[in-house]
Amino acid sequence: MANKEIPYKIYLEESEMPKEWYNVRADMKKKPAPLLDPATGKPMTVEALSRVFCEELSRQELNDTDAWIPIPGEIRDFYKMYRPAPLVRAYCLEKKLGTPAHIYYKFEGNNTSGSHKLNSAIAQAYYAKQQGLTGVTTETGAGQWGTALSMACSYFGLDCKVFMVKSSYELKPFRREVMRTYGADVTPSPSTTTAIGRQILAEFPGTSGSLGCAISEAVEAATSREGYRYVLGSVLSQVMLHQSVIGLETNAALDKYGIKADIIIGCAGGGSNLGGLIAPFVGEQLRGEAKYQFIAVEPKSCPSLTRGKYVYDYCDTGRICPLAKMYTLGSGFIPAATHAGGLRYHGMSSTLSELYDQGIMEARSVKQTEVFEAAEYFARIEGILPAPESAHAIRVAMDEAIKCRETGEEKTIVFGLTGTGYFDMMSYEKFHDGKMTDYTPTDEEIEAGLSKIPNIG
Amino acid sequence: MANKEIPYKIYLEESEMPKEWYNVRADMKKKPAPLLDPATGKPMTVEALSRVFCEELSRQELNDTDAWIPIPGEIRDFYKMYRPAPLVRAYCLEKKLGTPAHIYYKFEGNNTSGSHKLNSAIAQAYYAKQQGLTGVTTETGAGQWGTALSMACSYFGLDCKVFMVKSSYELKPFRREVMRTYGADVTPSPSTTTAIGRQILAEFPGTSGSLGCAISEAVEAATSREGYRYVLGSVLSQVMLHQSVIGLETNAALDKYGIKADIIIGCAGGGSNLGGLIAPFVGEQLRGEAKYQFIAVEPKSCPSLTRGKYVYDYCDTGRICPLAKMYTLGSGFIPAATHAGGLRYHGMSSTLSELYDQGIMEARSVKQTEVFEAAEYFARIEGILPAPESAHAIRVAMDEAIKCRETGEEKTIVFGLTGTGYFDMMSYEKFHDGKMTDYTPTDEEIEAGLSKIPNIG
Repeated sequence: MANKEIPYKIYLEESEMPKEWYNVRADMKKKPAPLLDPATGKPMTVEALSRVFCEELSRQELNDTDAWIPIPGEIRDFYKMYRPAPLVRAYCLEKKLGTPAHIYYKFEGNNTSGSHKLNSAIAQAYYAKQQGLTGVTTETGAGQWGTALSMACSYFGLDCKVFMVKSSYELKPFRREVMRTYGADVTPSPSTTTAIGRQILAEFPGTSGSLGCAISEAVEAATSREGYRYVLGSVLSQVMLHQSVIGLETNAALDKYGIKADIIIGCAGGGSNLGGLIAPFVGEQLRGEAKYQFIAVEPKSCPSLTRGKYVYDYCDTGRICPLAKMYTLGSGFIPAATHAGGLRYHGMSSTLSELYDQGIMEARSVKQTEVFEAAEYFARIEGILPAPESAHAIRVAMDEAIKCRETGEEKTIVFGLTGTGYFDMMSYEKFHDGKMTDYTPTDEEIEAGLSKIPNIG
Repeated sequence: MANKEIPYKIYLEESEMPKEWYNVRADMKKKPAPLLDPATGKPMTVEALSRVFCEELSRQELNDTDAWIPIPGEIRDFYKMYRPAPLVRAYCLEKKLGTPAHIYYKFEGNNTSGSHKLNSAIAQAYYAKQQGLTGVTTETGAGQWGTALSMACSYFGLDCKVFMVKSSYELKPFRREVMRTYGADVTPSPSTTTAIGRQILAEFPGTSGSLGCAISEAVEAATSREGYRYVLGSVLSQVMLHQSVIGLETNAALDKYGIKADIIIGCAGGGSNLGGLIAPFVGEQLRGEAKYQFIAVEPKSCPSLTRGKYVYDYCDTGRICPLAKMYTLGSGFIPAATHAGGLRYHGMSSTLSELYDQGIMEARSVKQTEVFEAAEYFARIEGILPAPESAHAIRVAMDEAIKCRETGEEKTIVFGLTGTGYFDMMSYEKFHDGKMTDYTPTDEEIEAGLSKIPNIG
């Protein structure tokens, strides 16, 4: 319980901002399984990873022993431009729901990328610059990661090539223009500019694309160019490491007011925002210092945790990236073109997968119409217009708060509000016009994806 | 000079937020000229004003004696959801420009309306609710005011009818959808739903509309309906009063770190953001406590201060609103369809007009291409993607900082960054494609507008 009056928004002082990222893998007794080299089937080395990723990021990717990694000064300075993010007490939502629960959300949308993605983008661009690279390539789904990387590359003077999932490219024409404002080059994926893109287009003509396809194209574009490396906005352990800044700030803000969270909720696509949010709390629990309920929320249309298998699989549709052990629907699974492009990924972060497998984290899947209902309700009460991805967490946070109303429990619910929906208005329009439908894959469709997973590791 | 290290962003504590608005008219020896009733040519009374506006707002409109007006608790609670707005030290911009100047900006874009407009919208909706009204009508240019009012009306359960300037309606399709998310009804103006709209369409077929037209339609829609009043997002003294929260927070943030501003800059359309920003500083100067340089920045395409006349004129194209003494281009002047819809108004706040006339405030006009150059430069350096309106202030702040580089002066420059440009990407696209042109009215065009001003007052 709180010791002093809690303001609507808790901002840390600049001096209270994290100086190190937290690497939860160091505190896990059973570690996430290692990445495997698709050529040899053996664990990836820093050297092999460095052909695709920046060297220092490759080291971070494989580091499961150091709990604390210093945040370089230049990155901390950049963080100061848009962080700390506020931890908001949802007083109005609590009142409207008539719940005894206390609801808090960590709001990551107060920057031009509109999301938490900038936390890792600036780190990855920094290490690329340090390595003396010319530029980086990447994929983007909802467009938030692409925008974030464009901003980060512009800041450090790096070239930035973005492959944007075609369905998002078409739904979000203005996203491309924001990236262009920051000097990036944006291509809809699958495209004819890469061999793998041409192959996917031949196999699935008229496909609206997926994160898996776009990743394959971006990796090919990076590895076939001198002075380029590939960077990824989610799934990887390095990304979750950078995103730990979310959880560390949240933890510090709660501590400042003597608040103890009971439930911590986040949406999960590749898993980096949720992983970053819960990391320090999971660490406390692993060290026996506290106990929490962690809930991952995924769309029913792409249910990797709730309906996938925990096995080694390719991270990309083109099968050129390392293999990861994760909850997966199969790298060949192409999810329906729903309105939460950032959650349309067939797999889940290996760290979150392991935490889920150990029963430390739960998972729920939700329908997109009920997500948009929650999004609009929240916008009208709390003012912030959420991204469809973020609204998955809002949905479950509201559900939990309503449960508390029924049981009378005064639980403290914390959720991650990862970003804003200003570029998602076509989706909101469909919802307002009653034209939004729900899509849940049939058992046959799920089985078809799972059956194509290689038998490795 | 600063006493302690200045963070990138200064946030006030909730307890330090203003509890009263500041009414600068009370400290002006020569007051702004009173509003006149168009029917009688005599000063407006609260009673007469109340036929169009809410009663309490009418009282605020005519109050030029009370310097401090308490902010009701419900409005202060709403402010706490998205305020305090940060006062940002533009360290990166200073470094990039190589200037000895210290640059600060008050950023009002961290809310879903994307601008400062919410500060007055919530106040106006509150007083409408207190009066027991069913709903309100209004106009919107760039769409920020309409969005803000939609949010405020949704919060208090009021009906909200918005007339949106047709050029903006077409340039910003997603703005309508945001307003719809908050339950508002949006009509492009001029429209056939009002008598004045039909008249304007008959006189100027194919017109892209203007704030002046949209105001006329909204007033007609309010006064021809039971339980409705008209609300306005700028120009009026009541709006400038509510917007004083910007200046009061800025002043408190500067004080907290012992910083003394030398130059204070804002963009000026109707004048409310600039008026709100500078009000407490003007007050200090009027009371002889400090001296500042105040600069209003307007577009060359709509230069009311720099090329208008200081006379009584109609506030709206339809000539049904009260007459105000102000710098004006004539209520018949319809500015070119430029990309800063929020600055396309023929007149200027009577308070700012009087301050300009007394030589307390300066004015500059700038070309839109040089504004977009500044906008993109700023976005890349400071991260925030500004609204075209706000970028007018950025342009002049950068110009002043560059002057300091040349003279070596360590001036402290404060400017108002009123909002974000996420819904202006079509304008940015034109700029990127080299298709943006500048428009400066000829002397004949200015003269044509001025010649139609009535000879009153």
